[in-house]
Parts: sequence; C-alpha cells; structure tokens
Amino acid sequence: MFGLLRKKPVDKLVEVLGKDKVSLSLVERKLYSYDATPIPVERAIPSAVIFPTCQEDVQKIVKVCYEEDIPIFPRGAGSGLTGGAVPILEKGIVVSFERMDRFYIDVDNATAIVEPGVITYNFQQEVEKLGLFYPPDPSSFKYSTIGGNIAENAGGPRCLKYGVTREYVLGLTTVIKEGNILKTGNPVIKDVAGYDLTKLLVGSEGTLGLITSAVLKLIPKPKARATALITFRELESVGKAVTKIMTSGIFPSALEFMDSYAIRAVEDFKPVGLPKDVEALLLVEVDGSPQSVKEDINQVKELAKSMGLEVQVAEEEEKAEKLWTARKSLGPALGNLKTGKINEDVVIPRIYLSEAIKEYRKVAEKYGLLMVIFGHIGDGNLHVNLLYDKKNREEEERAERAVYEVFEITLKYNGSITGEHGVGLTKRKFLELQFGPVGMEILREIKRAFDPKNLFNPGKVIAP
Amino acid sequence: MFGLLRKKPVDKLVEVLGKDKVSLSLVERKLYSYDATPIPVERAIPSAVIFPTCQEDVQKIVKVCYEEDIPIFPRGAGSGLTGGAVPILEKGIVVSFERMDRFYIDVDNATAIVEPGVITYNFQQEVEKLGLFYPPDPSSFKYSTIGGNIAENAGGPRCLKYGVTREYVLGLTTVIKEGNILKTGNPVIKDVAGYDLTKLLVGSEGTLGLITSAVLKLIPKPKARATALITFRELESVGKAVTKIMTSGIFPSALEFMDSYAIRAVEDFKPVGLPKDVEALLLVEVDGSPQSVKEDINQVKELAKSMGLEVQVAEEEEKAEKLWTARKSLGPALGNLKTGKINEDVVIPRIYLSEAIKEYRKVAEKYGLLMVIFGHIGDGNLHVNLLYDKKNREEEERAERAVYEVFEITLKYNGSITGEHGVGLTKRKFLELQFGPVGMEILREIKRAFDPKNLFNPGKVIAP
Repeated sequence: MFGLLRKKPVDKLVEVLGKDKVSLSLVERKLYSYDATPIPVERAIPSAVIFPTCQEDVQKIVKVCYEEDIPIFPRGAGSGLTGGAVPILEKGIVVSFERMDRFYIDVDNATAIVEPGVITYNFQQEVEKLGLFYPPDPSSFKYSTIGGNIAENAGGPRCLKYGVTREYVLGLTTVIKEGNILKTGNPVIKDVAGYDLTKLLVGSEGTLGLITSAVLKLIPKPKARATALITFRELESVGKAVTKIMTSGIFPSALEFMDSYAIRAVEDFKPVGLPKDVEALLLVEVDGSPQSVKEDINQVKELAKSMGLEVQVAEEEEKAEKLWTARKSLGPALGNLKTGKINEDVVIPRIYLSEAIKEYRKVAEKYGLLMVIFGHIGDGNLHVNLLYDKKNREEEERAERAVYEVFEITLKYNGSITGEHGVGLTKRKFLELQFGPVGMEILREIKRAFDPKNLFNPGKVIAP
Repeated sequence: MFGLLRKKPVDKLVEVLGKDKVSLSLVERKLYSYDATPIPVERAIPSAVIFPTCQEDVQKIVKVCYEEDIPIFPRGAGSGLTGGAVPILEKGIVVSFERMDRFYIDVDNATAIVEPGVITYNFQQEVEKLGLFYPPDPSSFKYSTIGGNIAENAGGPRCLKYGVTREYVLGLTTVIKEGNILKTGNPVIKDVAGYDLTKLLVGSEGTLGLITSAVLKLIPKPKARATALITFRELESVGKAVTKIMTSGIFPSALEFMDSYAIRAVEDFKPVGLPKDVEALLLVEVDGSPQSVKEDINQVKELAKSMGLEVQVAEEEEKAEKLWTARKSLGPALGNLKTGKINEDVVIPRIYLSEAIKEYRKVAEKYGLLMVIFGHIGDGNLHVNLLYDKKNREEEERAERAVYEVFEITLKYNGSITGEHGVGLTKRKFLELQFGPVGMEILREIKRAFDPKNLFNPGKVIAP
C-alpha cells in the first residue's frame, strides 16, 4: 500500500543527492528565506535548502526540478539588497552554493576558474599575492560570493576606472532548462563568435539558470595608490570639479561623494576628523606606478586649489585608509540614526547630478523624511538613503512613496533605477518604466528561451 | 487596368522614403554587394540600396520590409572580413548608413551620442581634442564606421588594456521587428536593470535589428606613450616574456607579436630596420602620465634584459610611429607576397600560444602553404594568414582545408574561432563547434525574439 503513496518532490532530491546535501530542517529553511534586503518583501519558507558540491549535483537538481516543477531560488551569501535570493514559493527550494568554493588561478594566462560559492575577498587576496588584480569591489566583498556578484553584476568604487563584474567574466558554465549544460565564452579576452551569452547571463539575477563555474579575467596589480579629500561649500561646484578631474588626463581609480548629511552621520558615529560644516566632499583615489601616483595626486590638488576648493592629500596607506574607513562606515552610521533605511542606488548622468540631488532633497522635504546621499559620483551612481523609524508604519509608507518619486526624477534625467543592487523583487514594478513594452517583451522571450517553465528564481526581475 | 498591377515591394520603399534615398541603379547595387572579405562568398545583387538619413527613415524601412517580407542587409563601410555586409538574397535590400553620420560629444558627462555612419577615426579625433579618449582601434578605423564596429564588436591592439567596443557602448536605439523602437541602456556607466540587451546587441552583426544611435563611453586621454621592441631567438620565450610583463604591475596599452615570416614580409615590402634573422618580435606599448611611461618602459627593458633578450626603446613619438608603421603595413606587405590571403583571427589562451603556433605551422607544412602569424598576443588574438595564389584553384582549396584544421587546433586549446572579425558568412558553419546544440538553440531563440521573420541580415552568424 505504501508503494502507492506518491513521493514528495523533495524526496526525489534527497534520493539523487544524498541526505547530507539536502536540509529539511525548519530552522534552516527559515534562515535561508532571508537576504539583506532592508525593506519587507514577499517571502516563503522553502521546502528544502540544497547544498550542491559540484556541477553534477547542480545538474541533478535542475533535472529533478524540471521534472517535478519545483521552483529554484539560487543563493550566494544572501547579501543582496533587492530580494534576489529570497524564496517566494513554498514548493520551491533554495540552492545555496556555499560548498562550491574552489578556485584556480592561472598566472600565465591571467585568468581564473572560480566556483560560484567563493568569497570575493578571499579570491582577491590570493590573486593579489600573485601580482594580479580582480577589481570588482561591492561593499559586501568581504562576505559576498563571486556567484552572487556575477548574478547581480556587482559594482563598487573601483568600477569607475576598472569596469563592473561583467567586464571580468570571460566564460560561464551554466545549467539551464532540463539540466542542460550551457558553456559560453573561453579563457580569452576577445571572442566575437555568436551572440555574447556570457555577458547576457551576467546580471540576470539567477533567472536564466544556475552558474556552476566562471572564467574570470585578471589584470596587472597597480603598484601604488593615493587619495585626496576635496571639500565643498556649495553643491554646484561638485559636478564642475568632477569634470575638471576627468578631462585632465588622470583616470581616478575611485571618485566618491558624500553629502553634508552623510558627513555628519559618519562624524557622529565614529569621528575621523571630516569637516562638519561643508556641503559635500569628494574622495579621489588614483593608482598606478609610484611616480605617476605622485604626479596625478598633485595634479588633483592643483585642480582643486585652482577652483578655490580645500583639499588634503593622503599619500601614505594609513592616512588614506582612514579616509576610506569614513566612506565604508556609512552603512552602520546611518543605522545609528534611524532603525529603517531604504537605500536606493540610482544612476544619473554626471551632468545632472547637482540638479537631481536638489530634486531628491525636495522629495525628502515633501514627505518629512531624513535623506542621506553618497555614492560613486564618477559614474553617476548615487546611494539615496531614506531613513525612517521601523516601528512607525506611517513613516515607512511615506518612505516608500518617496522612493517612487526618486525613481521618477532619475528616469527624467535619463538615468537608471539601479546601478548595482539589481532588480530582484523590490524594483521589478519599476522595470517597465525603463524598458517600455517593446523591451519587456524581449526580456520575457529571453527568459522563456533559457527557462520555459519559469523555474529559475521565478518572480524576480520580471514581474509575473 | 494598371491599378490592378501589384506594386513591386521596392516601389513602396521609394514611396515612403523618396527617390533620393533609394538607389535602383545596377552599378550601385553591384557595388554594394561586396565587402572586404578576402575569400569568395555567397552573394546576390540586392533589389535596391537604401540611404536613410534619420531614425524615422530606418523605422519606415523596417515597417515596409516586415510587411513585404524583404530581407535587410545593413552596411557600415563594408570593411568587414567575414561577409557580414554582403547581401545574399536578390529580393533583399542593402541599407547603407553612410548618410547618418552626426555625433555629439558631452564632455561633462564623458559620453557621446553617435549615429551609425560616423567614421571611427573622425570621431576619435574630435574626442581627443577635448581631452577624452575612445580607445577601440580596429585596423580599419580610418574608414570603418561606429555602426559597423558595434555590429562586429570591433577590437584592436589597444583593447588589451582598454577593452573592446562592447565595453564602450552604454546604450543603443535599435529598430527591431515590425519597426518597433527598442531603447536600451542610458548615458551612465552602471546599469543593472534587467538583462543587458545593449551588450547583447553589440556583436550581433546586424541580425537582431538596425542600430540608429549609440551612447558611447569616453575616458580620460592618456598623456604620454612609449614603445619597446623585443626580439626573440626562439618562440618558447615569447610566452614567458608576456607573462613576466603582465605580472610586473605594468599594464601595456598594446602587446603585439610578429613571427619571422611577418618580419621578413614587412622588411621586404617597406624596410623599417627590423632584424630579419630573429624568430619573433614583440612590440610593447605603455601609456599614462609622462613619468609613469618612463618608469614602465624602463621596467620592460630591464625585464627583457634579465631574460637575455634584445630590446630597443622608442620614447619619442616619431621613433615609436616607425615601429607601429611596420605592424600596420603587414596587410599590404602580405598582399605583396601572394594574391590570395585567408586571414583568420583565432584567439587562444596565452599559455598555449607557442604550442598552438607550432601546430598551426605543421598545418601549413602539411598543405604546402605559406603561413604568416602576427597579432595581439597580450589577449591571445592571433592573425593566422594563409597565403595562396588566387588563380590557382587547387591551392585555394588547400588553403580552405587548412583553415578548418586551424580552427580545430584553436578549439582544442579552449580558444575562439574569431576574436575580432565576427562570424558573418565565412565562419557560420564552425559556430556549432564552439556553442554546441544547447547554445545554438538559445542563439536561435534570441534571434526569433528580435526578428521572428528572419529579415535582419538573414543567413549571417547562424547557418540557415
């Protein structure tokens, strides 16, 4: 009689993978239903959390899921901010890549083969020991994974000069529909054979398949760096200073912006001696050979002085580190101000920055909210933070309405609703604003080509 | 009675565009049925050559073609080497973008809006006058167009450090099926909203739609450059030297390779004083601030000397120019040796270069052909040239068979069959070797999503 009972789909996964790779524990299933998204999102407790250790495991998982119609929610470190790793269907499983964390660095070819679960920082440390460099540096790089970084096409301050994650992914092995293996790209920098599926998979947020390994490009490691701190009495001069620097023949490795609220938040939280009475500041980092770094940073200094701006230079690693600590402690510093935070990572063309910032500020005023702006100004990527009291539902709602207006302003200035964090769950309703019906149709058809049953991270990026 | 006669599809195009934008002249139709592909390819005389002057024209063209099932063969400067711009159906029309050649440079935002017919060199000249830089430098850059460069994802020597065309395309406006306008991307460096259709369109060889404008990224212009010439008595040392340079903290702006045959071809054609008795040479270019260029080029010199290699440095623009002239005159120099040339632009991981070159040489021996190898060794992109007598059909056939073996060797070493030239007509039969059936199915479905009637450059990239 028992033989007639239909097996639960999850049992089949246990059967093909073995017990130690499939967790059915309620605690674990609950834990893996969260990521770092700061606002409430749709969420379901998955039926299992799976821990593959190799490509064959991943292929087995997808085969079973395609047979049994089980939705798959892939997960790196769960440090995403838009709900990308959050399971939203109870029938679904979370596939966590934490046990796939091997990598191999090929110095002679300046490439590496990396499994998705490798922690970005660990990988970067090994790469730099060998005189090479893997630049992508999202704020989460000390704990986020290469797989997650690829899925989200992670950026960071250095991406101004060095480009985003996509530019370092030369090839991918991906398990797509029915468990088919799709190999794209090669360990070579140039490849124009066919449509570039590798670059299409980067940033697809796990909706097209499960990446099991990546070939990454490495570049020579810069020998030195230095940082300048420029302060501003008025917002208008910021854009002008950025243009002056970027057309002077210097290519900064980072160009970061903090507004007056951000400066005060840092100084109140963990003082590093930033001037609290200024309207904004720029951190300008240059890298390269020791001699060129000296030259470049001096030129930045002269440029700033010629504009009547105050400037300090930190040539020693230690002094520079202190300045960058200020920038990096912004997250916790804001947490200190209010319990709730919506951190939107809009991008706008550099020329409209000061105008757009003024309009964002008006939105904050209109809704009576505290707004803190900082970000990667060199590439127009601003982190617009709306702070609120988590216990105050009315204030939270005001913050959500304000976000909508922030996006409208962004798109008015030919910007993008997300420069780094991805679409996930939280921004999917805004995607059509940017793509229009023609673009949305193409996105849907591409999704169908890779995943006709809509089982890979369903509900993410493209609204159902 | 005449009213009952069905109008020819081309008449409809004349009707909507006006006579001066539609050429029905046989001479012109014949002229526009060729591109720079050096080997015989399938070819048809198109029914018309169309010269749109704006996006609205392009939209009208696509609308009529979608109604009347007219194949569209888009064309830049016709400098492609794989038949990408060659019409292959008599019913088809050629759409030449030569009259769409406006561009606007936005210095403050370090971006430009460019129409497809703009000649790359002209654009670069204007950009550099403003202290900015648009690096992609295919050999054809003095006459090829931005539209063609985008369609083929053009590379060049500088792409080692600066990346290929794709990395400079931030946004596109493309006319796709039914004449729909697809706007993708924005004038910003970072954008992770939705799948990256912009990067997918780059390199799609006109098979997904007609690009009517592009937003390009510009970067700061390097202030100085210098070149070193390193010569080798044996091929084996080349790979080692490349690795030493690339892990020394220097990021060369170009790293070009010429084998002994290439060196002799240049010296016999237009002598610049290259040593004719060596096995190979490397041209190493560095750029940046004047001081760092001095430092870097000296370090290259020391590295080469420590390996027992001979090295000359050209710090002055003029001396360097002379060396680069040698590299650039390779095309005509080879034309001087034999009337026929198959120039394959394979890519292999740098570590396998010397092994692969030996195997390529064996193929040349086996088929009794003259083979000349040079190329962008820093990124593993080699131009393997098979020379033959055009009037000798038997020799030509031997050359074609040899190419097949060159591709097989390339793929054995995890390489790509094309690093710069694209697939077009000449390489489409090899594409499945690289993509496999799973990848080919995805390529076909993407093609269908953009162009369900298969009217955009039909027969290219994907074999019918």
